[in-house]
Amino acid sequence: MATIVSPPHFSPVEDAENIKAACQGWGTNENAIISILGHRNLFQRKLIRQAYQEIYHEDLIHQLKSELSGNFERAICLWVLDPPERDALLANLALQKPIPDYKVLVEIACMRSPEDMLAARRAYRCLYKHSLEEDLASRTIGDIRRLLVAMVSAYKYDGEEIDEMLAQSEAAILHDEILGKAVDHEETIRVLSTRSSMQLSAIFNRYKDIYGTSITKDLLNHPTNEYLSALRAAIRCIKNPTRYYAKVLRNSINTVGTDEDALNRVIVTRAEKDLTNITGLYFKRNNVSLDQAIAKETSGDYKAFLLALLGHGKQL
Amino acid sequence: MATIVSPPHFSPVEDAENIKAACQGWGTNENAIISILGHRNLFQRKLIRQAYQEIYHEDLIHQLKSELSGNFERAICLWVLDPPERDALLANLALQKPIPDYKVLVEIACMRSPEDMLAARRAYRCLYKHSLEEDLASRTIGDIRRLLVAMVSAYKYDGEEIDEMLAQSEAAILHDEILGKAVDHEETIRVLSTRSSMQLSAIFNRYKDIYGTSITKDLLNHPTNEYLSALRAAIRCIKNPTRYYAKVLRNSINTVGTDEDALNRVIVTRAEKDLTNITGLYFKRNNVSLDQAIAKETSGDYKAFLLALLGHGKQL
Repeated sequence: MATIVSPPHFSPVEDAENIKAACQGWGTNENAIISILGHRNLFQRKLIRQAYQEIYHEDLIHQLKSELSGNFERAICLWVLDPPERDALLANLALQKPIPDYKVLVEIACMRSPEDMLAARRAYRCLYKHSLEEDLASRTIGDIRRLLVAMVSAYKYDGEEIDEMLAQSEAAILHDEILGKAVDHEETIRVLSTRSSMQLSAIFNRYKDIYGTSITKDLLNHPTNEYLSALRAAIRCIKNPTRYYAKVLRNSINTVGTDEDALNRVIVTRAEKDLTNITGLYFKRNNVSLDQAIAKETSGDYKAFLLALLGHGKQL
Repeated sequence: MATIVSPPHFSPVEDAENIKAACQGWGTNENAIISILGHRNLFQRKLIRQAYQEIYHEDLIHQLKSELSGNFERAICLWVLDPPERDALLANLALQKPIPDYKVLVEIACMRSPEDMLAARRAYRCLYKHSLEEDLASRTIGDIRRLLVAMVSAYKYDGEEIDEMLAQSEAAILHDEILGKAVDHEETIRVLSTRSSMQLSAIFNRYKDIYGTSITKDLLNHPTNEYLSALRAAIRCIKNPTRYYAKVLRNSINTVGTDEDALNRVIVTRAEKDLTNITGLYFKRNNVSLDQAIAKETSGDYKAFLLALLGHGKQL
């Protein structure tokens, strides 16, 4: 369930005009911007951006970038972007880091539907004149490259049909490779990157039934490297998205100085999907609500905006 | 340029009715079917199939399958299928063989536009409840798997922009790997499967400029294996599609007993695209026209149908 609250009736033209007014004159009226954009759903934001372009011949994103700054600017721009463009941007930023942020790429590849992933790849190609897998493959090497390139390039079957026999035999393949009985992880990468989410869940369940421990626990017993940690992240995303996101949020808040990139990414990409479930689990695990934790760790307009996406604050 | 000749005006309903009439009664009127379907373009065939479905509540493909047989049936069904379904079927048939027909998969991956390849993958998933890369990865192993899975999963940039510096450095990478100076072909596979066609052409040109021989010639000096021969096929597809297809046609005709699968595939998939150029080159290389060669090697309705796709015969 979504956390954001949006009005049933709204006027994209009025919203665009109110945002423009908030940007004009001396100083910017950030409160007005938050109470509008923080309370509009995907479809509404799309219409506002279109209206803004038509009235002022300027991209709303450019306007916001020039008026705002810091984490607030980054969060609200992510929020206004169309999801495929947003995913393309997140993937590109992850790739631009001195050591690519593999977990962001894993998260995007695992959490998007096959069609959404195609849309993100299309947006990436359009924005950067390269394909996502092209940039990824040229920035990585070895097992981590094999895993990630295969994962972002997949267009998986996403129906309900599963094959129990296959789940059993492939659980054994994963077990052998993870326990180091094989020379490489070729088959693990094949299974992870090509089997459907439903089939993978069946494989992970069979794994636990047969061997008594979960695959993620078995992976924890390894000396870690970037490939194994990406693999583990992928398995956690597929097994239980809610738990995965709750953990990312906790890590982003509990780190020294707060990891705002991770915080923005999860709040912005999940606020219209399953953030209610994630905040529920967050509370259970941490004995403090996500809203309180965010209020404590952040400040100013940035705080007000994140809380708006969590369903707080007044809407205009 | 296309070889097929189609009428500027036609009635899908009349065509559907005439095909039905040709299928009814004692024996089938194959000539009528050829003079209709052999002379209708993609859009027209689509409308005929729709009209047929609406009038007779039956898929035209099923009707044709039950009335016709052998190579003629296979060729005409391929022809009536929508291109994405057709590619999915060709890929699936190639994968079903005891040893998968790697060259068909290479050909599809290299010769389709990125969007057409996505459409084929979508059709595959819809028809077989698995993704194409999933079936491919589970039927292959090692380098051939790495190359083919990466190639069919790619969604390449297909713009005009190229990077000359990168072309030079990647030509050197290919040269090193192909001449055996590297332990594996990881980088060759990365370059082939992620760089755009324009960029790859630039790389192959720089290769020849720097090293004096073409990359395909250097590959010929290797003891061959299935991976190297698939790699060479991919490079030939990208370098010069017309020459590649002319060679496939020659091989299909010159082999003992004719390779009808290859013949059908090339004629059917290129008749509305570049078959005129291919037949032109075929004549230059073989001193016999493709039409004459096909007329000599095939017979009956099958021959009449292939010749219709080459622009002969009367249209109804």
